[in-house]
Amino acid sequence: MVPKMMRAIAAFQTLPIRDEASLQDVWLPVPTPRPNDVLVKILAISVNPVDVRIRHALHGQKRPHVLGFDAVGEIVQLGVDVRDFTVGDRVFYFGSTQRPGSNAEYQLVDYRLIAKAPQRLTLGQTAALPMTAVTAWELLFERMSIPAAAHATHGSMLVINAAGGVGSILVQLAQWAGLDVIAVASRVNWPWLQKYGIHKLADYHSDLTPQVQALGYDMVDYIATLYDPVPYFGAIADLIAPMGHVGSIVATDDSLPVAWLKNKSVSLDWEYVFSKSDYAYQMATQGQILQRLSALLDAGALRSTIAYNFHGINARNLRQAQAMLETKNTIGKITLQAPFDGEAKALDDIVWKDPQSYADETLVAFPSRRPDDGDRRAGTDSGQRHLVHPTGRPSDRGKDRQH
Amino acid sequence: MVPKMMRAIAAFQTLPIRDEASLQDVWLPVPTPRPNDVLVKILAISVNPVDVRIRHALHGQKRPHVLGFDAVGEIVQLGVDVRDFTVGDRVFYFGSTQRPGSNAEYQLVDYRLIAKAPQRLTLGQTAALPMTAVTAWELLFERMSIPAAAHATHGSMLVINAAGGVGSILVQLAQWAGLDVIAVASRVNWPWLQKYGIHKLADYHSDLTPQVQALGYDMVDYIATLYDPVPYFGAIADLIAPMGHVGSIVATDDSLPVAWLKNKSVSLDWEYVFSKSDYAYQMATQGQILQRLSALLDAGALRSTIAYNFHGINARNLRQAQAMLETKNTIGKITLQAPFDGEAKALDDIVWKDPQSYADETLVAFPSRRPDDGDRRAGTDSGQRHLVHPTGRPSDRGKDRQH
Repeated sequence: MVPKMMRAIAAFQTLPIRDEASLQDVWLPVPTPRPNDVLVKILAISVNPVDVRIRHALHGQKRPHVLGFDAVGEIVQLGVDVRDFTVGDRVFYFGSTQRPGSNAEYQLVDYRLIAKAPQRLTLGQTAALPMTAVTAWELLFERMSIPAAAHATHGSMLVINAAGGVGSILVQLAQWAGLDVIAVASRVNWPWLQKYGIHKLADYHSDLTPQVQALGYDMVDYIATLYDPVPYFGAIADLIAPMGHVGSIVATDDSLPVAWLKNKSVSLDWEYVFSKSDYAYQMATQGQILQRLSALLDAGALRSTIAYNFHGINARNLRQAQAMLETKNTIGKITLQAPFDGEAKALDDIVWKDPQSYADETLVAFPSRRPDDGDRRAGTDSGQRHLVHPTGRPSDRGKDRQH
Repeated sequence: MVPKMMRAIAAFQTLPIRDEASLQDVWLPVPTPRPNDVLVKILAISVNPVDVRIRHALHGQKRPHVLGFDAVGEIVQLGVDVRDFTVGDRVFYFGSTQRPGSNAEYQLVDYRLIAKAPQRLTLGQTAALPMTAVTAWELLFERMSIPAAAHATHGSMLVINAAGGVGSILVQLAQWAGLDVIAVASRVNWPWLQKYGIHKLADYHSDLTPQVQALGYDMVDYIATLYDPVPYFGAIADLIAPMGHVGSIVATDDSLPVAWLKNKSVSLDWEYVFSKSDYAYQMATQGQILQRLSALLDAGALRSTIAYNFHGINARNLRQAQAMLETKNTIGKITLQAPFDGEAKALDDIVWKDPQSYADETLVAFPSRRPDDGDRRAGTDSGQRHLVHPTGRPSDRGKDRQH
């Protein structure tokens, strides 16, 4: 029996993470599935840097923002159009930016975005993976054109920021596909990477090019940048092989001299794991990728990247987890496991007064960088001033300069 | 019987194209094949914007620079390791930047870079194609991951600068592969594109986004930029579909705000047709692509993009052809057809005095933009000042910002 109200952890405005009001235990109505939704009772969640970024971008407002993407839980209700799943299924997913998040006892999610959870992993091991593993999968096997099968390719890959959440699973997937992986991380995190079978290591505090050459490589076929690409872009241009792929998941406000990649015919491949759900484009592939990952995890071909697990999903633990992420020194993933045991405030105590509207409309406030955003058009980034925008009449220079 | 000396057209220094000394008829020794070379008697050539760029980058020196890439001709000598070709074969190719060019009666070329010429085309029609067609092929089918077969895919492609040398063949190849092509060109060149079956047209003098929308597209799956990408980058970011590919062949000194492409998980694919020969990497694929193009041309699936043909390969005609390219208003390709009939100067009349060294060593002076070039390290481009280069210790900001 699904109750009418549920515990959740909400943010209302941007506050320092040590402020108890930054993330608060609240009661909210349990939402009702739309035709493509399943209602999931949450058993464990993880935190991601994107949660911190969203919290930092909140404007003061009266509705609660429920953060959280990664989740593992049990289906308790089905929308009328749901296929392939049934009540009682244990599923894992990371949802979308368009709906309330997983930091709540119950969550709605489109069934095309989910998969059955691996059976041999703990709840924490499972909750650690969905967003980072799908990010890594899409980057390698959709964006960078690497075949998605065991030992399907060969060649070398440099992974910058390999010990982080995405990096720890990406290095495993790259090895599974047949690539020779060189990982860049702080020396203190080298044992963490060696645990996952990565033995070619470089120190991010020193120049990359001589370190990679000392490992026996003049150039590498693929480079994954899981870190601001700006400080590494010179080394990337030096080290990438002709016809290589540079995959990046971290946006930068700075412009990049991408023509440095031209004479080697290199591709710069962006990966943003919410592209599919934000644009309602190829959404079912999100669930399909999770299903393949689930099978690989059960088969032991991949291992969970969980590093820390909190027992009890509540505002205090979530503030602690986000504080850890804010240090930017964590490795692997941080998870929180049910029960939801926060000392939730009564509804009258919180500023938000309109419970019925919550289930339908409240979205997380995501700091989007879509091209139609005003902040781009403002052209305040100094790196943009060479560009004519909005697109005007091109000048005569450059025409037919194709060779 | 191969003679000892041959006519050629040479440049010695950068001069205005109307100066008769900018390109001169000369006599040079006929070179001798190395093991992988064939010696080709040139029957027709074409000019490309890269010839103009190289001429503009010459420093005064005593050796002749023989420009020219595209060629069709007949094999007259074989190196000892040559396979698949024999004396008398008619071949077409565009060579490499590393050796003397095709503006000479005889030229050496590595047999892995050539293919048998189409049989149903004239010499001019054939000479027009090699470099531009391979550029278009590699961009579409290697860099942008479009399947290389007739009707193999669907989706939409915007082609910026579609009436130029590369554009005129690229739009045909894109249609052959199954894509719905929207071409951007000056209105005066629309009939040229309609001749190749392109009927969705946009004017490069006006904003692209409303024009593409008026044709019925919110976004397009692929964008090929065959023009300086800077003035178009805002429209490109607006119009590209999620998971789309933006392919570019024109380098820019300006940095680009490539993170505008991030939230749609878009790839920016560079194509530079000399990557393979400059880096001695996958060289045989250059000949293989030409062989496929040759078959498609003979089958009528592609048509030559020749627009102007000069009879007589000599300095006067070549200066005229380069002057036309310098106007940046040409469509399609400009070719020159044998005989070599210039009034060549006697050897004593030209500044270069060491004929024996020519065949071994004279290279075209190509204005390379490889990452190891000093001009990049100098950091004089204002767009580069945000970047730490050579790669230094990254700052702490950005770490673990993967989501």
